[in-house]
Amino acid sequence: MRNFDEYKEIVNANLTELIPELPEHSAVLGEAMKYSLEVGGKRLRPALLLASCEFAGGDLDEALPYALALEYIHTYSLIHDDLPAMDNDDLRRGKPTNHKVYGDAIAVLAGDGLLSTAAEIVCKGPLVYINDPAKMANHLKASAEIMQRAGATGMVAGQTADIRGESIEPTAELVRYIEEHKTADLITAPVRAGLFIAGASEETLSAFTTYAKAIGIAFQILDDILDVEGDQELMGKTLGKDAEQGKCSYVYVHGIDAAKEELHRLTQEAKDSLAPFGDEASFFVELADSLETRNN
Amino acid sequence: MRNFDEYKEIVNANLTELIPELPEHSAVLGEAMKYSLEVGGKRLRPALLLASCEFAGGDLDEALPYALALEYIHTYSLIHDDLPAMDNDDLRRGKPTNHKVYGDAIAVLAGDGLLSTAAEIVCKGPLVYINDPAKMANHLKASAEIMQRAGATGMVAGQTADIRGESIEPTAELVRYIEEHKTADLITAPVRAGLFIAGASEETLSAFTTYAKAIGIAFQILDDILDVEGDQELMGKTLGKDAEQGKCSYVYVHGIDAAKEELHRLTQEAKDSLAPFGDEASFFVELADSLETRNN
Repeated sequence: MRNFDEYKEIVNANLTELIPELPEHSAVLGEAMKYSLEVGGKRLRPALLLASCEFAGGDLDEALPYALALEYIHTYSLIHDDLPAMDNDDLRRGKPTNHKVYGDAIAVLAGDGLLSTAAEIVCKGPLVYINDPAKMANHLKASAEIMQRAGATGMVAGQTADIRGESIEPTAELVRYIEEHKTADLITAPVRAGLFIAGASEETLSAFTTYAKAIGIAFQILDDILDVEGDQELMGKTLGKDAEQGKCSYVYVHGIDAAKEELHRLTQEAKDSLAPFGDEASFFVELADSLETRNN
Repeated sequence: MRNFDEYKEIVNANLTELIPELPEHSAVLGEAMKYSLEVGGKRLRPALLLASCEFAGGDLDEALPYALALEYIHTYSLIHDDLPAMDNDDLRRGKPTNHKVYGDAIAVLAGDGLLSTAAEIVCKGPLVYINDPAKMANHLKASAEIMQRAGATGMVAGQTADIRGESIEPTAELVRYIEEHKTADLITAPVRAGLFIAGASEETLSAFTTYAKAIGIAFQILDDILDVEGDQELMGKTLGKDAEQGKCSYVYVHGIDAAKEELHRLTQEAKDSLAPFGDEASFFVELADSLETRNN
């Protein structure tokens, strides 16, 4: 296994490889898609996919297209989320958001284009193994996992609940639903997809699903803590918007101290779930720790 | 083979079968997705998929999920296209557009949800045949075909060119690019996908691809003719918007008489491409004729 920065470097080196070259008539679509990809990012989701696949003995090159698809899905969700129709954010990762650069119409289409390209990648990926049905099936399981968790019962449901939370008094249950779906689903998807590609056992899948869900919820809670206490320059986006827009968050419902406790509890839960794998899972244990202490 | 209305009836009877039931927190997403599906429509794309599959000896039940996925993709594209950020339409099929009912944010998400659900359907579809690798591969070819033509080199590229056409003086080349990608790609996709599912020959695929592209371009040209000459009540949407918004269309570039000639020429080309199949292809020949004379 490699370290996180090595996976991130692989993702960055191949980031726009699967974004199509387009003729003049539609070239701006490709430019807008690439703009938001290249503006930066942790590359957490694709790195998790590559790492999970290698952890279970799978091949990095096989996993790479799916890893890129995950980053395309994550990026589409940010572009649409930043639209004036949604959160109306001008700044993302310290740079102007997609619609500030390309206008609202192209930003809608850039998001649609990224999601579509991800779907195209995960449909074409298994076809490479048309003469190896077992492998084709493993890849297809990864494809279905990614599209399900990104979809109407996953991330999009979480985004919807988040919008709804702006107009009702948030409950603890609603907040957890948002954390699980808006955020944790798209962190669980790459972990499980990487394991599917490698043909991992049910036991491994189960343990890592617990891990991924815990770090995913923790990730959202820390985002909400940083929205209150974070450094705007480090975060690269406008902070304090949650409270302003009445967004429901763990911090809003339970208070900042309880949020920090929950962040720590979930990080511990994530690490505990991988105890059976001992040192072999150290990549994931260290990642959970570093995510708990991130400041951006 | 059945007639068009029979296929349409099958589609309507199953239309929302694959839209997920959602808990209260995100229920509005499912409602918004269903609203735009149920507001009506020709069901041209799913009917084409079912008919193509049956024409080539395939099974209707196998094809149905893909047919629904096509209608979900078509519907998502209309929801996003109608947004204030895009065409800003209040009326679609005689009913208020999605964002007029649910607001812009939920309309963005309803579109995302429909596209995601379609992607989920076409990834899970082939997995049903995990013990029949040849069939799994045929289904997967249908999945890849659908997502490619719906995607960043297909329909989304066409939408982008359409937006671009609002701000530049349209050329004949740009107009054809828009017709091919915005419209014909999503009419070609179901025809080819249906044939893939049935395991049709290369010759059949090739002839029907010519057919589908021709009726697809013809469909867009007639839409542009009807935007000028159509009956607003029959069409169920605001007409005359193309000229007003400076949209590039065949009518704008070549004039209305030339548009009618091209519509007729393309319809003939479509029918000619199926001549080798004789009466067996009469469903598709009659469909081409009826599309040439539609008034909505």
